[in-house]
Amino acid sequence: MKKALFLLLAPLMAFAACQSKCPENVKTTQEAKMSAEEAILTRLSVRSFKEGAEIPQNVLTDILKAGMAAPSAMDRRPWSFVVITQKERLKALAAAHPHAKMLLSASAAIIPLATVDLSQPGMEKAFWIQDMSAVTENILLSAHSKGLGAVWVGVYSVDERVKAISEFLELPAGTVPFSIIPLGYPAGQGEPKDKFDESRIHWEKF
Amino acid sequence: MKKALFLLLAPLMAFAACQSKCPENVKTTQEAKMSAEEAILTRLSVRSFKEGAEIPQNVLTDILKAGMAAPSAMDRRPWSFVVITQKERLKALAAAHPHAKMLLSASAAIIPLATVDLSQPGMEKAFWIQDMSAVTENILLSAHSKGLGAVWVGVYSVDERVKAISEFLELPAGTVPFSIIPLGYPAGQGEPKDKFDESRIHWEKF
Repeated sequence: MKKALFLLLAPLMAFAACQSKCPENVKTTQEAKMSAEEAILTRLSVRSFKEGAEIPQNVLTDILKAGMAAPSAMDRRPWSFVVITQKERLKALAAAHPHAKMLLSASAAIIPLATVDLSQPGMEKAFWIQDMSAVTENILLSAHSKGLGAVWVGVYSVDERVKAISEFLELPAGTVPFSIIPLGYPAGQGEPKDKFDESRIHWEKF
Repeated sequence: MKKALFLLLAPLMAFAACQSKCPENVKTTQEAKMSAEEAILTRLSVRSFKEGAEIPQNVLTDILKAGMAAPSAMDRRPWSFVVITQKERLKALAAAHPHAKMLLSASAAIIPLATVDLSQPGMEKAFWIQDMSAVTENILLSAHSKGLGAVWVGVYSVDERVKAISEFLELPAGTVPFSIIPLGYPAGQGEPKDKFDESRIHWEKF
């Protein structure tokens, strides 16, 4: 009787597992046809994800490729990345940041790191934050255009956060965790904000 | 004889004028179909533009709309914009920055401004630079997807540049010129850099 029940339920269970595990909605770079304008205007912060789903590694690599296509002052490219997909590591990362509970349901997290000589004055100091921000924005747009949800969790320049995440990742001195980007399949249907405000535009002079 | 020559040449001259003045390549948001991935991966710094060309005001407004769609920490939206299209003003702006000669051939320039209380410690101070960087990147991607060329000219946090541009724009205290984005029709065909470097990716741990 038990066996019969199992045989009856097995296909249903397999289907249910696939529903949560299989990335039926995720698109590769080749498949992702969302226009740049649509991606920019409809991107939104996603903080709740379908639990247990996985993001294929080639999709994560493509998202990192978008990150590395960011502009960089004097072509310095100060970036590297840690990608976390293991459930236990995501949980531990969530515990290391005061506002990262969304990592508990995320399928992955990208942590863009900057390698900079923070003691150096002048140009390098002035622009690496801007490079890393463009990297983060590219990653958010790329993920959104592929059907994934993501959110920009701030790390730098809040000292306690930089310290906690550096310790968690065992980073060498001079390598700074810049932000955390939880990634996953959105659990709900969010509404992007319309932030256009014509009064912020000054034609020809302020 | 002079009049006959003029009648003969007028249509040719009108055609030539249109060739340089009419934005035959620019696309509105509705027309721009470049995918987000393509825009991110093929965006490049354009520093040489077709002189005398104009960018329709609705296209500039759509590019600013993309800028204002940037993520913003705690939804502060610290941004506003000056848009310059007058030739004389572009020339004067070029003279106010040590690396902005490309403005001499540009059709327009967008200067994203941040309104922040720079004396305030903590969160606001930590994240407005990142907000403004995401704004700048969105503007670059939007312009590229519409067939325009653009480049990120750094202003903040180089003190002399901030001072010179603030004076040029007659900005009140607390309003900071963040970057300058010259815009125009690319004079040549540039090659985007392939900056993907797999060795920068660390799976699970650094």
